[in-house]
Amino acid sequence: MYIGIDLGGTNIAVGLVNENCEIVAKDSCPTLSKRPFEEIVRDMASLSKKVTESAGYSVSDLKGIGIGCPGSVDHANGEIIYSNNIPWNHAPLRAEMGKYFGDIPVNIENDANAAAFGEYSVSGKGSNCFVTVTLGTGVGSGVVIDGKIFRGFNGIAAEIGHSTLVHDGIECTCGKRGCWECYASVTALIRQTSEAIKNHPDSLMALAAAKEDHISGRTAFNAAKAGDPAAQEVVDNYIRYVADGIMSIINTFQPDLLVIGGGISKEGDYLLAPIKKFVAENTYCKDISQTKLAIATLYNDAGIIGAALSAK
Amino acid sequence: MYIGIDLGGTNIAVGLVNENCEIVAKDSCPTLSKRPFEEIVRDMASLSKKVTESAGYSVSDLKGIGIGCPGSVDHANGEIIYSNNIPWNHAPLRAEMGKYFGDIPVNIENDANAAAFGEYSVSGKGSNCFVTVTLGTGVGSGVVIDGKIFRGFNGIAAEIGHSTLVHDGIECTCGKRGCWECYASVTALIRQTSEAIKNHPDSLMALAAAKEDHISGRTAFNAAKAGDPAAQEVVDNYIRYVADGIMSIINTFQPDLLVIGGGISKEGDYLLAPIKKFVAENTYCKDISQTKLAIATLYNDAGIIGAALSAK
Repeated sequence: MYIGIDLGGTNIAVGLVNENCEIVAKDSCPTLSKRPFEEIVRDMASLSKKVTESAGYSVSDLKGIGIGCPGSVDHANGEIIYSNNIPWNHAPLRAEMGKYFGDIPVNIENDANAAAFGEYSVSGKGSNCFVTVTLGTGVGSGVVIDGKIFRGFNGIAAEIGHSTLVHDGIECTCGKRGCWECYASVTALIRQTSEAIKNHPDSLMALAAAKEDHISGRTAFNAAKAGDPAAQEVVDNYIRYVADGIMSIINTFQPDLLVIGGGISKEGDYLLAPIKKFVAENTYCKDISQTKLAIATLYNDAGIIGAALSAK
Repeated sequence: MYIGIDLGGTNIAVGLVNENCEIVAKDSCPTLSKRPFEEIVRDMASLSKKVTESAGYSVSDLKGIGIGCPGSVDHANGEIIYSNNIPWNHAPLRAEMGKYFGDIPVNIENDANAAAFGEYSVSGKGSNCFVTVTLGTGVGSGVVIDGKIFRGFNGIAAEIGHSTLVHDGIECTCGKRGCWECYASVTALIRQTSEAIKNHPDSLMALAAAKEDHISGRTAFNAAKAGDPAAQEVVDNYIRYVADGIMSIINTFQPDLLVIGGGISKEGDYLLAPIKKFVAENTYCKDISQTKLAIATLYNDAGIIGAALSAK
């Protein structure tokens, strides 16, 4: 049995994962990320023990503990170098967690890498190059090559959301301009929807947003499905941003499987079909096996499962 | 000893390469690319034998033959799937070459991958993630991960020149819009120079181009060095295109070493220093080991050496 921890800015989610990549028990608690580092780790440790025991196991049954963390992770040294969402700087997470678990190996991974490894372990087994893209608050990504998480030489590779899609474009939270994330994240979709609502105040989309007093990643998609042309334009442009970045990933990695996750991925084929069309039209070498594109299957559990299995 | 062949649209360059990655003899002949496939391969074979014998060796001393080819290469099946520069379609190059060399293993690689492997073998040894970018007629690239050429699942990965840099930008020869290559190749620099000359007909750059009756990749660089502000603007913008794409490669691969080759790389530090500055300013995680950026060392020999060593 393995413990997988998905450490987020809001919640700590812990799962007990078996050899078949299944979660047999899980629980969560608030991160309260402003607290001292040691307190947060203490809660991670006690929740891990609680989850293990809740399924009838004991700590001695654990073969490893994996933690998926936001931000830049020094996998080799077991440190979180820097995170936006949890105000840690060179936090020695592996060592601190190890204090509670003796000889049980602890592995820490970037959360997008952990989620990618989870998806790989469940949907991508046998793939020699596997990529996940997560369309969420940002655009996360993870790459698994020959069954190993690809981390680059310093552990922080596969930040494909920070590839430039629009040279000299919108300023990103990373400090650079024009990152794919600035156009293809849910945050970007909400911005694009909000701008379109200003330009089309009488559209279905505008009325729905006013009624709910809220704009979400679903606002434009729902209105487009109800026949709103202004919303359809938002959706079409948004999907083109997503698809163009995915085309770049294909030209760069030629993965056998590329899986799209995150909130927007719940749109399913409504999102996937136009991406496939864009890719088919823009592939420069059509006369060879092509990357398979799919919607992620694990959704929120990918982080827990991937973190757990990364400790194998 | 190994034979390395750099098969280009114009010339076939053949080198005899020893275990120390050194070319001990080389020669070339015209490709005359419109000829029948078998004739071109026959010339490649006879030139390989001639070069081997010119250095006092015989074919029985050869441990392998590697061929770097333009276009999409099916490394596993030994075929050139498709090439723009040589009008071949599913050409069984490995089998045809094999007819002349009995049991000696023949390997075929994409030319950019072969050049990357050559640079890696000479400058990048020990690197666990190594990338080359070649600023030429197009923008070539190659990636070596854990000492192996990275090819993706279908053999045609690492076409990073066809990552989008400008969403919905200039139409590329690959059929997609806004590829990095459309902004960072020598072809692009010549177009950018030509446009600037139209807007600044009295600039030093315009006068130099008129005198030489020719615009090259050097026109703007030379005029900028001579103090021409219009040329400086061309060079600054061009280097920003190059640097922005390199920043995306770093965020994606985090290579320990990234090497820049091709004609423009002869500008040396004049090119490299502003790229380093852009990367230093735009790196999101400054508090960790950073990618080393360097100018390629092998220049034209990279293709021969890399092709030869790929047959090891």
